Amino acid sequence: MRKQPPYYAVIFTTLRTKEDQGYEEMAAKMERLAARQPGFLGFETARNEIGISVSYWDSLEAIRQWKEQGEHLLAQKKGKELWYQWYKLRICLVEREYEFSQS
Amino acid sequence: MRKQPPYYAVIFTTLRTKEDQGYEEMAAKMERLAARQPGFLGFETARNEIGISVSYWDSLEAIRQWKEQGEHLLAQKKGKELWYQWYKLRICLVEREYEFSQS
Repeated sequence: MRKQPPYYAVIFTTLRTKEDQGYEEMAAKMERLAARQPGFLGFETARNEIGISVSYWDSLEAIRQWKEQGEHLLAQKKGKELWYQWYKLRICLVEREYEFSQS
Repeated sequence: MRKQPPYYAVIFTTLRTKEDQGYEEMAAKMERLAARQPGFLGFETARNEIGISVSYWDSLEAIRQWKEQGEHLLAQKKGKELWYQWYKLRICLVEREYEFSQS
């Protein structure tokens, strides 16, 4: 990610149901679609007991546009009906960052 | 988590080395110690290809105090020497949040 702070992060913490139908396909598709949105900066995801996905954006307006994207709206609806038992979504301003790489 | 925004999140995204010695023990210990720090609000973690751990704090001062905690300083040193190939740490102001629970 080239952008320096300040920028935005959306932290999406999830507890899945046992319903897997269509989930992996949707998740991969949403990742591809988000990456094409204006203002998209990056995406990270990990899962074991819970899932944590973080997407990075250059503005609140970019987050709002992604929230309202047509296929994403459908995915949000199915997420509530089928795939997620619980989730929490946090919109955050990234103020500072530090990076480490082993030499 | 009872605290409403605004509060702080520290997003810690990591790529591990193959060196596992002492890692799980350290990670569990740091989670216990963080929970006893002043201003600690919560912790979430998930790992598969990458690890994402998010800790939540009531102020930047609480984050600073945890960063300087003695055993945590040792863990940070060993993290760079042994356990992490790469990491990125982001300090974020949580501005808004939404929660969903299946009824």
